[in-house]
Amino acid sequence: MTTTRSTLRRVAAEAAGRSPNRDGAATRRELPTSTDASVRAAATPQADDRAQEPGPWAVGTRRSIVIERMSPEIDGGRHAIKRVVGDQLLVTADIFADGHDLLDAVLLVSGDDEEAWREIPLRLIENDRWSASTTLERAGRHRYTIEAWRDAWGTWREGLLKKVDARVPVATELAEGRLLLTGAMARAELAGGRADLNRMREALLRSRRARSERTAAAALADERLQETVRRHPDRSWSTRLDRELPLMVDRERARFSAWYELFPRSQGRRAGKATTLKGAEWRLPDIAAMGFDVVYLPPIHPIGRVNRKGRNNTLRARRGDPGSPWAIGSSDGGHTEVARELGGLAELEHFRRAVEAHGMELAFDLAMQAAPDHPWVSEHPEWFRHAPDGSIKYAENPPKKYQDIYPIDFYGPDAAAREALWRAWLGVVMTWVERGIRIFRVDNPHTKPMPFWRWLIGEVQRDHPDVIFLSEAFTRPSRMRALAKVGFTQSYTYFTWRETRDELRDYLTELTQTAMREYFRGNLFTNTPDINPHHLDHGRPTFEVRAVLAATLSSSWGMYSGFELCESKRLGKREEYASSEKYEIRVRDWDAAGNIKPLIARLNRLRRTRPALQAYEHLRFENATGPRTLFYRKALPAGELDPLTGYPLRWRDPVYVAVNVDPRTPERGILHPDLPAIGIGWQDPYRITDLITGRRRTERGADVAVDLTPEQPFRIFTISALEA
Amino acid sequence: MTTTRSTLRRVAAEAAGRSPNRDGAATRRELPTSTDASVRAAATPQADDRAQEPGPWAVGTRRSIVIERMSPEIDGGRHAIKRVVGDQLLVTADIFADGHDLLDAVLLVSGDDEEAWREIPLRLIENDRWSASTTLERAGRHRYTIEAWRDAWGTWREGLLKKVDARVPVATELAEGRLLLTGAMARAELAGGRADLNRMREALLRSRRARSERTAAAALADERLQETVRRHPDRSWSTRLDRELPLMVDRERARFSAWYELFPRSQGRRAGKATTLKGAEWRLPDIAAMGFDVVYLPPIHPIGRVNRKGRNNTLRARRGDPGSPWAIGSSDGGHTEVARELGGLAELEHFRRAVEAHGMELAFDLAMQAAPDHPWVSEHPEWFRHAPDGSIKYAENPPKKYQDIYPIDFYGPDAAAREALWRAWLGVVMTWVERGIRIFRVDNPHTKPMPFWRWLIGEVQRDHPDVIFLSEAFTRPSRMRALAKVGFTQSYTYFTWRETRDELRDYLTELTQTAMREYFRGNLFTNTPDINPHHLDHGRPTFEVRAVLAATLSSSWGMYSGFELCESKRLGKREEYASSEKYEIRVRDWDAAGNIKPLIARLNRLRRTRPALQAYEHLRFENATGPRTLFYRKALPAGELDPLTGYPLRWRDPVYVAVNVDPRTPERGILHPDLPAIGIGWQDPYRITDLITGRRRTERGADVAVDLTPEQPFRIFTISALEA
Repeated sequence: MTTTRSTLRRVAAEAAGRSPNRDGAATRRELPTSTDASVRAAATPQADDRAQEPGPWAVGTRRSIVIERMSPEIDGGRHAIKRVVGDQLLVTADIFADGHDLLDAVLLVSGDDEEAWREIPLRLIENDRWSASTTLERAGRHRYTIEAWRDAWGTWREGLLKKVDARVPVATELAEGRLLLTGAMARAELAGGRADLNRMREALLRSRRARSERTAAAALADERLQETVRRHPDRSWSTRLDRELPLMVDRERARFSAWYELFPRSQGRRAGKATTLKGAEWRLPDIAAMGFDVVYLPPIHPIGRVNRKGRNNTLRARRGDPGSPWAIGSSDGGHTEVARELGGLAELEHFRRAVEAHGMELAFDLAMQAAPDHPWVSEHPEWFRHAPDGSIKYAENPPKKYQDIYPIDFYGPDAAAREALWRAWLGVVMTWVERGIRIFRVDNPHTKPMPFWRWLIGEVQRDHPDVIFLSEAFTRPSRMRALAKVGFTQSYTYFTWRETRDELRDYLTELTQTAMREYFRGNLFTNTPDINPHHLDHGRPTFEVRAVLAATLSSSWGMYSGFELCESKRLGKREEYASSEKYEIRVRDWDAAGNIKPLIARLNRLRRTRPALQAYEHLRFENATGPRTLFYRKALPAGELDPLTGYPLRWRDPVYVAVNVDPRTPERGILHPDLPAIGIGWQDPYRITDLITGRRRTERGADVAVDLTPEQPFRIFTISALEA
Repeated sequence: MTTTRSTLRRVAAEAAGRSPNRDGAATRRELPTSTDASVRAAATPQADDRAQEPGPWAVGTRRSIVIERMSPEIDGGRHAIKRVVGDQLLVTADIFADGHDLLDAVLLVSGDDEEAWREIPLRLIENDRWSASTTLERAGRHRYTIEAWRDAWGTWREGLLKKVDARVPVATELAEGRLLLTGAMARAELAGGRADLNRMREALLRSRRARSERTAAAALADERLQETVRRHPDRSWSTRLDRELPLMVDRERARFSAWYELFPRSQGRRAGKATTLKGAEWRLPDIAAMGFDVVYLPPIHPIGRVNRKGRNNTLRARRGDPGSPWAIGSSDGGHTEVARELGGLAELEHFRRAVEAHGMELAFDLAMQAAPDHPWVSEHPEWFRHAPDGSIKYAENPPKKYQDIYPIDFYGPDAAAREALWRAWLGVVMTWVERGIRIFRVDNPHTKPMPFWRWLIGEVQRDHPDVIFLSEAFTRPSRMRALAKVGFTQSYTYFTWRETRDELRDYLTELTQTAMREYFRGNLFTNTPDINPHHLDHGRPTFEVRAVLAATLSSSWGMYSGFELCESKRLGKREEYASSEKYEIRVRDWDAAGNIKPLIARLNRLRRTRPALQAYEHLRFENATGPRTLFYRKALPAGELDPLTGYPLRWRDPVYVAVNVDPRTPERGILHPDLPAIGIGWQDPYRITDLITGRRRTERGADVAVDLTPEQPFRIFTISALEA
């Protein structure tokens, strides 16, 4: 049932004080006859308690139902839980009150832009624990809460039945019941529930005409009548949870996405020669063929000329060095411009349409910092931090210095200047949103205030709930989590530094099986322009393994171009790439021998055809012997979630992955899939289908041996019951 | 340091905008010379951000420190945690912010009746987790919260040292440091910190006179100077936790108490003959000798004459039947009167003084219900629930009926009447508080609204924090917990229905080792006038065992008189006593053969001499073989609590208890005390001292055999290291 909030309040007010079992005035009157006039009289408002009572703990309050242990909620409702369109929202809570009355309750869900609450009945699971589940159909910010009330009819009916069983007189009870019924009829009439009203009137008449108390009781205790009366409860004294909990419903790509990062200027075909965005478009069919959904570009704004860095991060740029795209802004403009050397705004628009024509989406880089020649530096010196000598301080992480970048100062002394700064950034983001960008990868968000992100993301998503923000923070766990809590849709993770079987299992368990799953969506990148992990030194089998892990452990993964070519040349012993594209043009042969593009295409195709791989939280690690053998399952819930735990009870359509996490050393892993979890008995035969090769075989028993070698360091397969 | 809240706000305002590293205006001025005048100028208020910013998420806010995962807290601060005077309050929280600044923070604690916050520095434990501990010295309602700020000096100093190490020029840094120091000097002067001011001025001079940057840096990076500057931080942009968490500090008896319940009218010496309160006073020396602290009386008000119940709960009282004390009120008066047959108010006052003269305290029964002839029934019909025929409804739990009791209706339709009702009950309680009663055992609180208890207990304890409320609720777990959360000092428990080793271990672990320990203090009663547990049918060994369990598992326990005589005659097969004192006068021989008074005296003496038995949460179950052998330890923390878990790391002064929970069957239990927990090595010899018999013996190794027989079904002992 859908009612507007104001209607709800009005109806509640109108029925207030009319619950006959509580209303001293009504109980002392004669029983009304069942004419429409008396029904209307019983519905006339007398007192609006909701208006009279100042707060939940007001002296004399009747709103005494306790609603606690809400699940899910983050920090008592301070932050929004996250879902995507089509997801279930399963809510559980303890709901109880003093005394012996039965209770009833609804889950209330509403979009922030909606007038109406949608009501979903909660049902009692066990021992004061209630639960309701609903499908989320619209993207956008939502709220949910719970309202509970005393089920006067159910309570009365229970007492009546006990007394009838005990064969004690029930005349008083019948009189009370008729009064309750009359109240429900009044409310049904107000709500326009004609059929319900008729059923109740009929029961009332039957109970009056009955020859014995027993027959009259039977007429009123009727189960269908109970259902009818419950639809018209007196909620004028109901209790609401003391807060409305936020919920963000994203579009599906927020959870399920495969990202490909590239420097457009390096997509030309002549060595050392930069290209524009248009000149990079020829690469899109190849990227789409690999199955990616998102094409992510580092900043494409004018690059600063002052203090421009040279190749390999040297202090002085040589003539023609293109500079780091993250040194944003020059006399050509700042964060709302596109660099001339990339073809300007027109080519960007063309590029975006080309990306979309290939079924992909463009992701933008939001790096809140300025080159020394960014227009804001002169226009808004108050947005930068000054040294005592008046100079602006460049970025540093002592003793490291970033001479080509001025950090933005979010902590200036002037409140108006700070507010203007926040609004300027909102303006930048909205400019790009209006130009069709819906995905932002945010650079180093942990160096900007959390309240800023909460505000910015909230402002953008209020009218554009389809906008996705990916947090590029590699920092301490509390800050990673906090950024997700304040609103980032997806987050980079520690994945590149989780290498052993136990590290991967523990970390992914934390991400997907703890409270983090409610708000933190880890996007597993195999590499980035800044992270060239040391394990990639071990060559192609490791590239394969890391691609498999990223693409199947999480529903979102990404890579920085060059990974598919098994590139790993590093600068000294550091985690940085040699001849990094950040500082120079690099032109590659995208079909070079030894590339793993077919595997990547295969993985992304599997992700599209196997819905289990599109789920984030339904990862389960399975047992396997072999210290290098990581074995896990992704599957979909079969049937409803367990309302007490929020987890599925049974599973369907599983995808199994077995990986040798250190594929230099071959290992025979013995896998022990949990067969009963997918409805197969420990003794039953079953079919294993390899999802890479398509090969099938029949197995029995829970020991499955696989040889994970440098040549074949992983298996992806499904298990299905053999049809008898 | 103690500052009033208003002073804090003023000082913060005065120093606002003056942090030179953030204040654009200040940084562009010349460095102030270090005269007193310039110091004062630097402290002049410019802007009060705290006043300007409307909320924690205001656009442009600088209050961006995140404070989360507060421990302890109950439901996000909705309810008070409980402590007693002398306890430690250990608070931990995650505290972090954006960027690279070091942070500093204080725990703020204040009594609700105090103007000032007490500040306790928090220290960083690991990975953004901070902790502080303080001793609670005053009873009463308190609040606690956290305030955190950026440690500008520490951050600057860390950067300076890195640069000095890297041998880069630090002139700019030195200038910044001197500005920061000048700000701290201004605040120190405002705070009257003369010595600190001098130390800072000296360092400033030294740094100015230094011949090299390195020497100047050394003068400013001095560790003692850092401590000094940290005492005068710029807190004008600090972040407060978004709520103040409630904390109730009770007097010690709230946690540590031994209760004895008796019907005063049954304390005469002639069979069947009632006595007054004065006539019951002769029993007090005996009760005091058994070591009890609290003498608890069922209601002593005038007993209703209408529908009075007869012996064994029969419907009609015979002439001379005294009636149930819980059927309160007659033409003699209601809840503020003392029954004539007990000697009226004068004898109560005498009895109370006599109880106190024996070093004990009187506990009162608060039963919110009325006999049909209670004065309120005619004076306030609106406080009772009426049937449709106008009659008042007596209490019932269908099909059971309590014809001698009218329940109070907390849900009447008239808001003013309900408010008057709440205030009337507050009046009743305050009447007795003013008459010297400080302990109330509350009958069936789960049938009255939770908001009512929260309000009533809050009102009483605001001015009388020494008042203790014991919740007599035997109901579902969520309601038991909720009553404790809304304010009940102590609670009855399921103890009488926990009989096996595993039941007792699991239940007491839940009470003492989970979040419940923060708010729920279980008082273990062996029996009550309504609960004659079936296990007591097994005679004296069971009485001994249940007394030992109650007296040592919890720091609060109680018994209803007759238990010490091993009485267990029941009404049919029910849990009720035959010839219950609730309905008739029963006179006993209090020195009857077979009584266990010496054991009870011994237990209560041990409780007084062994502080471990006075602690509630420091119960730990130990391993023992033998299905009936329950083995546990109570001990005191040795040293500080672990700030990360809130639990002790090591223990001292242990008391061990081994009990055969079903003493009809002898059992040899093998005990395995955790010796390292009390600082004894697994291979060390140690001494076992039996605390009942005083016998000592030396042991080695963690296997201790005990024969737990019907004659000797328990052992209580301590273990101590053998002095070398």
